[in-house]
Amino acid sequence: MSVTTKATIASFGGKLLKLSHNATTTNCEMSFNLYLPPQAQTQKVPVLIYLSGLTCTADNCSEKGFFQHGAAKKGIAVLYPDTSPRGLNIEGENDAYDFGSGAGFYVDATKAPYNAGYNMYSYVTEELPKTVFAEFPQLDAGRVSITGHSMGGHGALTLFLRNPGKYKSVSAFAPITNPINCPWGQKAFKGYFGDDQQDKWKEHDATELLKKWSGGPLDILIDVGTGDNFYKQGQLLPENFEAAAKEAGQKGLNVRYQPDYDHSYYTMASFADDHVEHAAKYLFA
Amino acid sequence: MSVTTKATIASFGGKLLKLSHNATTTNCEMSFNLYLPPQAQTQKVPVLIYLSGLTCTADNCSEKGFFQHGAAKKGIAVLYPDTSPRGLNIEGENDAYDFGSGAGFYVDATKAPYNAGYNMYSYVTEELPKTVFAEFPQLDAGRVSITGHSMGGHGALTLFLRNPGKYKSVSAFAPITNPINCPWGQKAFKGYFGDDQQDKWKEHDATELLKKWSGGPLDILIDVGTGDNFYKQGQLLPENFEAAAKEAGQKGLNVRYQPDYDHSYYTMASFADDHVEHAAKYLFA
Repeated sequence: MSVTTKATIASFGGKLLKLSHNATTTNCEMSFNLYLPPQAQTQKVPVLIYLSGLTCTADNCSEKGFFQHGAAKKGIAVLYPDTSPRGLNIEGENDAYDFGSGAGFYVDATKAPYNAGYNMYSYVTEELPKTVFAEFPQLDAGRVSITGHSMGGHGALTLFLRNPGKYKSVSAFAPITNPINCPWGQKAFKGYFGDDQQDKWKEHDATELLKKWSGGPLDILIDVGTGDNFYKQGQLLPENFEAAAKEAGQKGLNVRYQPDYDHSYYTMASFADDHVEHAAKYLFA
Repeated sequence: MSVTTKATIASFGGKLLKLSHNATTTNCEMSFNLYLPPQAQTQKVPVLIYLSGLTCTADNCSEKGFFQHGAAKKGIAVLYPDTSPRGLNIEGENDAYDFGSGAGFYVDATKAPYNAGYNMYSYVTEELPKTVFAEFPQLDAGRVSITGHSMGGHGALTLFLRNPGKYKSVSAFAPITNPINCPWGQKAFKGYFGDDQQDKWKEHDATELLKKWSGGPLDILIDVGTGDNFYKQGQLLPENFEAAAKEAGQKGLNVRYQPDYDHSYYTMASFADDHVEHAAKYLFA
């Protein structure tokens, strides 16, 4: 459970901590970043978990996502987990950008050999917060929201929809909202669950989860750029998620199609303040 | 003179353009970035030039400095030049991080072999703006400010002090303010000018230039982090610049020693808005 501090970096009046710990769920040392806003010096602060996309580590969004700007103003800590276990020496885990290392898809793998540690669902929902809340008493374990980008948007939506009440709010940038129907999701779920596990696949598909949601009215903010090549290629399928919301009578899904914006961190930076604001509405309710 | 557009990226309501052109002063193709704020669609906008530090290209600050955030609010274009010529095939130009490629120091080299194209002073003060203003009529050539980081802070201060009236304002992050007295500056000036050119060295030293300044009251904003290792190592020497200002009776030098901040883009991101605000005061005066 013990956490190692690798760097402490001043940022927007607070501190960005680069941390690591030996994680049981993933069978390896996991790096993560934690941004403590200035308010954390004198009071308990809520936490926004930001889940990153394919190929990323905790550093990409810490450097380029601009979440610290809004988080410092509001008094919200930001927790940036890594996107997969690292160095498990599973054959082929480093061969593709969209599967294995850097591509854990926020699921617990059931298929060998990836079930040897690709348990990012348990890691992000249980082990990491438990570790962080034990180490940093200035964080309020009762007020946690979640957001993410691309694969991390899939993670944010599915973790929220699978765990009613666990997170105060959810939002996403360019999320993979219907992985069972897109190439990225199908490749990942095939590798982590197996071809024949369609029920398992649906348990980690935001659109399928929304169809079954019984947790009351939803308020979800999603930004998708119309210049996003992965949107154009049908990897994100926000229309399917919107259709499921409409079918379910959920009027609180706000998908904003941002003209010309692409899949990069330039998009997150441009709208990060809005997503922090969305979380703050619930974290300080 | 013609400019090639390599990418157009939506950012904070405006567009970040990745551009290149064949430059005469540097004898090579030069890449640069230009941020056009949303206001540039309907009116002439002023320009803030951001000069980068050692090892950087135009992309580092575009991605991690968050000048676009403030520039979009104020209606200021941001011009990000590269830090040296590229690919001149001068022997040894890629051997060190602090000399040659990525380390042009915003001077015109007089010593062989670097006088074959290491003319970043002429490039940034003359050729690049001439090219950009010809290509983008929505930019106001009469309203230009300058800022920069580290080696680029040296560039901003020296270009401002050598050219009274050319720039409406100047500010800097962790600037090398007295290069003739620090290892980085001595190595660069020795290589670009020669050991025996002390007068030339002084012409590109902000502290020496300040001693001779006769352009009236100065208003210079500088941020230096107290956790900046290069500050601690004596590469920046802002105290020397402050002493020269005091000696000259210049009361408008505001050096802010930011507690714990380091030499990274996390520092620029944290205070970029203040530097845009500083420039805006003069660009919209």
